[in-house]
Amino acid sequence: MPQIAYLGPPGTFTEQASRALTTGFDAELVAYDAVPQALAAVRAGDVVAAGVPVENSVEGSVPVTLDSLVSGDPLVAVAETIIPITFDVLVRQGTTAAEVGTVASHPHAIAQVRGWLAENLPGARAEPAASTAAAAAAVDAGEFDAAISAPIVVEHYPSLERLATGVADVRDAITRFLLVRRPGPPPEPTGADRTSVAAVIAHEVGSLTDVLAELSLRGINLTRIESRPIRDRIGEYRFYLDFDGHVADARIGDALAALRRRCSEVRFLGSYPKADHSPSAVRPSASEQAFRASEQWLAEIRAGRLA
Amino acid sequence: MPQIAYLGPPGTFTEQASRALTTGFDAELVAYDAVPQALAAVRAGDVVAAGVPVENSVEGSVPVTLDSLVSGDPLVAVAETIIPITFDVLVRQGTTAAEVGTVASHPHAIAQVRGWLAENLPGARAEPAASTAAAAAAVDAGEFDAAISAPIVVEHYPSLERLATGVADVRDAITRFLLVRRPGPPPEPTGADRTSVAAVIAHEVGSLTDVLAELSLRGINLTRIESRPIRDRIGEYRFYLDFDGHVADARIGDALAALRRRCSEVRFLGSYPKADHSPSAVRPSASEQAFRASEQWLAEIRAGRLA
Repeated sequence: MPQIAYLGPPGTFTEQASRALTTGFDAELVAYDAVPQALAAVRAGDVVAAGVPVENSVEGSVPVTLDSLVSGDPLVAVAETIIPITFDVLVRQGTTAAEVGTVASHPHAIAQVRGWLAENLPGARAEPAASTAAAAAAVDAGEFDAAISAPIVVEHYPSLERLATGVADVRDAITRFLLVRRPGPPPEPTGADRTSVAAVIAHEVGSLTDVLAELSLRGINLTRIESRPIRDRIGEYRFYLDFDGHVADARIGDALAALRRRCSEVRFLGSYPKADHSPSAVRPSASEQAFRASEQWLAEIRAGRLA
Repeated sequence: MPQIAYLGPPGTFTEQASRALTTGFDAELVAYDAVPQALAAVRAGDVVAAGVPVENSVEGSVPVTLDSLVSGDPLVAVAETIIPITFDVLVRQGTTAAEVGTVASHPHAIAQVRGWLAENLPGARAEPAASTAAAAAAVDAGEFDAAISAPIVVEHYPSLERLATGVADVRDAITRFLLVRRPGPPPEPTGADRTSVAAVIAHEVGSLTDVLAELSLRGINLTRIESRPIRDRIGEYRFYLDFDGHVADARIGDALAALRRRCSEVRFLGSYPKADHSPSAVRPSASEQAFRASEQWLAEIRAGRLA
């Protein structure tokens, strides 16, 4: 059975995301200690793919993921998933709120439920754990009274039960994961796809405006942008761009070719179905038909058959 | 003495950054449990300012900082500092590497020294702590053998000593902090300043290109950009932009006014001296003199004295 890497341990948001990313095909999930190690395992061929956080992770570091994606052999995303960040509060069966003296979790998870804790478990002392799953394991072992955990973890610990569910100080926070593998034919276009690239450009006035104009002139909808300094290349900047469309689309291919001419480096990070399946709106002037018609017209002109 | 809030506990990178941000004026640093609470204290007038992470934090969450900056009453940055992310490995005096069986830290710090640990303390078990400083306190109390900590923490624990210093798997990683306060006259221009804004624009093809063109047409050098979805406003996106220059500069003021016309919301997040003091390069066509001359010329035209 093919193996897929993720940031462990089991029972975390990253396991939940990786399961969602691999729904429908048989794969064994393998936990790794850190995202760079999980990506190294994909590059080495030890696993076929890895599920990695790329936006607002609770336990992993997103900058580390982004830097690791572009350092080393190319990797491409083939699927994405977006999961809400809400926590379960788990206790040993029969424990009441009044009996909770200690509550454990990853410090970032504790930070995201601080308001809820003050209101609902005001007497409980927060204790750090290496992960949300490690917190549940410690409660299972009797070390703490309650754990702030990912919803998936209760499946691993039948002796625990939910004291509360859907806990989060901030409503509607989400975290986004990609399933990445070694380059190969991209997934078929679905009409609701996203394309990700990392582009390195000179750190000069207007260089990013020009790159984004290459997208907007072709009617391409940008969905995310983030700049990151490059460690060993003074005077250049790397931008992570996500936009609607598939590399097989004429307007996307045309834009990528333009980026290739304009940037000192463009790394294609994949075209994959959007998690929310929202169809890409395409202007008539940027449609497949418009591109085909304009190419045919140009060919006629060049052949001297039209003017 | 004025009080300044930061993300505690004492002895973390955030204390180190907040000290750097307040060098030269008498202020008492006050630790808060979370960045939103620290910013709330500034808004309420309980403290005069807060030091908050805005890029690549080890212990705090940068998305939480950004979201908290734009939610609630306005706040502006008046200073920035950039500090290298390298760790000290602290032990009780006299402990040798061979005697280290456990090493504690914030899980994000452990993730950033995993390679170093495997090479230098291969037998040591990693243990989670609520912060890098809490790890040092636990070593001081005899609970663990070593702590992965911010360089500043050794000042708080005279009984600890450095087993290693400058430890980091990734070279040249940095973290960036801003000192924010309630709105007031900005710091004087120094010729090496940065301006930060958060702009909300319609999520439409080309809207960001147009915003960035307002900057690049005026010769303004963008130093950072990050998009963030807005929770309760479908169809709009918020962008965090940092660029060279001071709100008192003609080209910056002109660009901000253009953004104000173009965006559904522009929040000025401050003009402040850059931590690296690198002077802003200004094109002749975007200089103060050029703006003054063009305004005088236009005034003459409008008055009918020139054509």
